[in-house]
Amino acid sequence: MRYALGIEYDGTDFCGWQRLGDNPSLQAALEAALAFVAGHRVDVTCAGRTDRGVHGLCQVVHFDSQSERSDYGWMMGANSRLPRSMAVRWCQPVADAFSARFSARARRYRYRILNRRVRPALDARFVAWERRPLDADAMHAAAQALLGERDFSAFRSSQCQASHARRDLQRLDVQRCGEEIHVDVRANAFLHHMVRNLVGSLLPIGRGERPVSWLAELLDGRDRTVAGPTALPQGLLFIGPLYPRECGLPAEVTL
Amino acid sequence: MRYALGIEYDGTDFCGWQRLGDNPSLQAALEAALAFVAGHRVDVTCAGRTDRGVHGLCQVVHFDSQSERSDYGWMMGANSRLPRSMAVRWCQPVADAFSARFSARARRYRYRILNRRVRPALDARFVAWERRPLDADAMHAAAQALLGERDFSAFRSSQCQASHARRDLQRLDVQRCGEEIHVDVRANAFLHHMVRNLVGSLLPIGRGERPVSWLAELLDGRDRTVAGPTALPQGLLFIGPLYPRECGLPAEVTL
Repeated sequence: MRYALGIEYDGTDFCGWQRLGDNPSLQAALEAALAFVAGHRVDVTCAGRTDRGVHGLCQVVHFDSQSERSDYGWMMGANSRLPRSMAVRWCQPVADAFSARFSARARRYRYRILNRRVRPALDARFVAWERRPLDADAMHAAAQALLGERDFSAFRSSQCQASHARRDLQRLDVQRCGEEIHVDVRANAFLHHMVRNLVGSLLPIGRGERPVSWLAELLDGRDRTVAGPTALPQGLLFIGPLYPRECGLPAEVTL
Repeated sequence: MRYALGIEYDGTDFCGWQRLGDNPSLQAALEAALAFVAGHRVDVTCAGRTDRGVHGLCQVVHFDSQSERSDYGWMMGANSRLPRSMAVRWCQPVADAFSARFSARARRYRYRILNRRVRPALDARFVAWERRPLDADAMHAAAQALLGERDFSAFRSSQCQASHARRDLQRLDVQRCGEEIHVDVRANAFLHHMVRNLVGSLLPIGRGERPVSWLAELLDGRDRTVAGPTALPQGLLFIGPLYPRECGLPAEVTL
């Protein structure tokens, strides 16, 4: 039997989603909790591997088990074993052909920037910080030039293992919310560090150091070395993947 | 010269505001940072001492120093020495007669309750949790009966050192915001544990275990032992005090 789970986490104290030796990964914590409930080893596959310090609102994973447990039993059993900063939001059986990774049609992220003179304290785990005033409208205008299916080589980490750099960027909205700037992104899939690299090149535009046209020039140049630096991980929240209605998953992860 | 400071903090990793031996208090961290900038010992007085695990959006303190530093110098110097979860939001000179504690005319708190089946993870540091559905309208209706100047003995901790229990409750609003219930409270001053004790008695009303009239009955009875338990500290955020316009403080702490 195959199950899908929705997972929420504060990524601050983890080395990232993926297992990495004996480091405290989100994957290792979840597999250990599910193994306890299942009574056997469990391997999970996720919709989007997040980096060290990146958070998740509704990551989705799938796993297989022959153990007979109710959906509620899987969820509450796993939650009783998971660290306080990680929880299963829901669990449900899915078709054997479902893959948390390959069935996803889109992924959504939010990047939060605290834009004030003083560094963050209350939300230090959840925001990046820019002390100089940012022009959110200029950032938003710049971003619109990247929408559609494009080659995102300019915003791809040198460690990226994807076979090509074409991605369909469906949304890249920048807006001010009080002292914060929110960057909301949606694409069919993302390259390694793609959101953080996009934000890193939006910031010089927001500060007025680069023109609005700069982001499109970077895209066209396909040269990672001339784009902005990678923005810090703590501002990034993986809102979650989106699946076709036929998968029958909860509304929060359904197209 | 007397200075006022606005202070923001995530209280999770502190033993509370007040100095308590060698424990990590917010007061000790702030006094150590200011002493480094001043070059002499500094004693701070705050508007409202918060308990272990309670957070602050704009706590206000005052301190005295003969050292000549700019407002920006005090702020940035202190922030360079404070732990990551604490920051000075602003600093400015005030009249010698100003007291962060005694000049305050009102204090405001918000209590956040995550109201869903699954325990919190992403916001585990900042919300309390109630798994049973809460009726925010019933809680709000019950709360309105407590407004005005009343004797709050029923909601006062046994360790409270105040000389009397009369307080002027100016606002006690309960509303649903998505999966969360927010309790927004304002009074001239608060007794020890008063907000958490009010929330602890609002919860049985929200769950339907007690009638809307119960909160007023508790108030009239003045008996702490029959009221609800003290709600957990992590849901509580001290929004900050309010001062008369004559004090000349920033808008966020001015009546």
